[in-house]
Amino acid sequence: MHLTPEQLAAFDRDGYLFFPSLFSPQETQSLLDAVPELYSRREAYNVREKGSDAVRTNFAAHLVSEPFARLARHPRMVEPVMELFDEEVYMHQFKINGKMAFEGDVWQWHQDYGTWLNDDQMPTERAMNVAIFLDDVNEYNGPLMFIPGSHKKGVVDAKHDLTTTSYPLWTVDNALIAQLVERAGGRRGGIVSPKGPAGSMILFHSCLVHASTSNLSPWNRVSVYLSLCAVSNHIRRFKRPEYIAHRDFTPIACLPDDCLVKPYPVDVPWKDGMPASALQTSSVPFADTRQAA
Amino acid sequence: MHLTPEQLAAFDRDGYLFFPSLFSPQETQSLLDAVPELYSRREAYNVREKGSDAVRTNFAAHLVSEPFARLARHPRMVEPVMELFDEEVYMHQFKINGKMAFEGDVWQWHQDYGTWLNDDQMPTERAMNVAIFLDDVNEYNGPLMFIPGSHKKGVVDAKHDLTTTSYPLWTVDNALIAQLVERAGGRRGGIVSPKGPAGSMILFHSCLVHASTSNLSPWNRVSVYLSLCAVSNHIRRFKRPEYIAHRDFTPIACLPDDCLVKPYPVDVPWKDGMPASALQTSSVPFADTRQAA
Repeated sequence: MHLTPEQLAAFDRDGYLFFPSLFSPQETQSLLDAVPELYSRREAYNVREKGSDAVRTNFAAHLVSEPFARLARHPRMVEPVMELFDEEVYMHQFKINGKMAFEGDVWQWHQDYGTWLNDDQMPTERAMNVAIFLDDVNEYNGPLMFIPGSHKKGVVDAKHDLTTTSYPLWTVDNALIAQLVERAGGRRGGIVSPKGPAGSMILFHSCLVHASTSNLSPWNRVSVYLSLCAVSNHIRRFKRPEYIAHRDFTPIACLPDDCLVKPYPVDVPWKDGMPASALQTSSVPFADTRQAA
Repeated sequence: MHLTPEQLAAFDRDGYLFFPSLFSPQETQSLLDAVPELYSRREAYNVREKGSDAVRTNFAAHLVSEPFARLARHPRMVEPVMELFDEEVYMHQFKINGKMAFEGDVWQWHQDYGTWLNDDQMPTERAMNVAIFLDDVNEYNGPLMFIPGSHKKGVVDAKHDLTTTSYPLWTVDNALIAQLVERAGGRRGGIVSPKGPAGSMILFHSCLVHASTSNLSPWNRVSVYLSLCAVSNHIRRFKRPEYIAHRDFTPIACLPDDCLVKPYPVDVPWKDGMPASALQTSSVPFADTRQAA
């Protein structure tokens, strides 16, 4: 799969690309079937909604579950990102966001790269967000909303919101959001919201400002969100636990295109539990640690 | 304005009717201009969002503000309701719901008639909800969602939710919502969400199950929600304050069709403040009170 010149231009202008039905129902189902067992685990990597047992975010499923380990190496996902960066990539984050029927709470307006810079000391924006729908996404189950072109602003001011939801987030100020939406076309295109069947994929720039509302519908909206970082752009400190921000910078080696429907062998090192080291953190950049040693 | 046989059939089947752009931009603006002064009043009738100064619901504006007093007597709104009930109507509730940009919180799934029955002892469902958009409503600013046909179920079980938002609400159980949505067509029409320009109007049955998500967009979604009750169906007790559930059962006398653009005289008895009596409540049906006297 190669990106067309039109796709490259659209990504540069808008900050995202949408690929409806990129994965087949059978491929998607193999992933969806593995979710309940993952969510049932009482591990730090399952963050639950405020005052509820519903999972808001599951981290690092690609280290625990074989179907997700295969997705993490899928050429239909990884190759376009390598093409955009003209470099190999590693897995920086791997999340399954529940946004469960009736329970799924809002995600306030934010950029992802701000966190990666501030917390993880990732040097530049050369990391890509990928969203893969495991359920159909419609206007009622809390779809992602983007402000097209907002990635052109680079990292914008944000404040650390610790109270709105169960997950702390660096959120962007309302006045700036209003300004960015106006600049992007206001009521005519200032906010967009790609919707489509399970198996659809969105690539979006790590500085693209995005949000999603709560899900009051009876339809789950489970999505995989992962972040592929150019290898040369790997993070420089381990301030966040390893299950959130990964520490293995090995370039991803893709599996064949049919890897979600055939049982290619794949490594799932946390299958029987997360190592204690995954919880260890340090606020000191590790380059400095090496010098000190 | 007379309803067509198709409209009457649609209302019976779906439980709502949508009238896009029923009021002109000039008419809508006369109302919108009066909102900030209303919201600025520190009165019990302004209920604010949890942890915020934004107004969630303003009650009884038709007793305080001339433009809203005229809207309360507008033939384009009142006549179709009288036609549906084949009877004169009085104003049971008059709300302006803020759903303000960035701040507007969810309204969980609920029916209105359940509250009117349980709290106000309104004998039957012969009361109509009317929504009038004062701002454009789009998929991003928390539009109303309906489950078509759910009014046919009559009053369904509900529990009193006192914690989710700043406004207590009798909300419907998730399993029942899922069932009603499935029955209404599931992913093909099981939830609908009329959207359109400011000045649009929705009439919806007092048993129609409805909800709305939060408003994360930079666009206010101010709407007037009012309830017109058939005069013979007036409430039988005053358990809620008068600014919420009105006690004047006089039939509405309509003004001329141009009443939002010409200054017809109209009475606004609470203009200079709400009388103390509006806060007095009683859990005893007033028929009984009379017998006891």
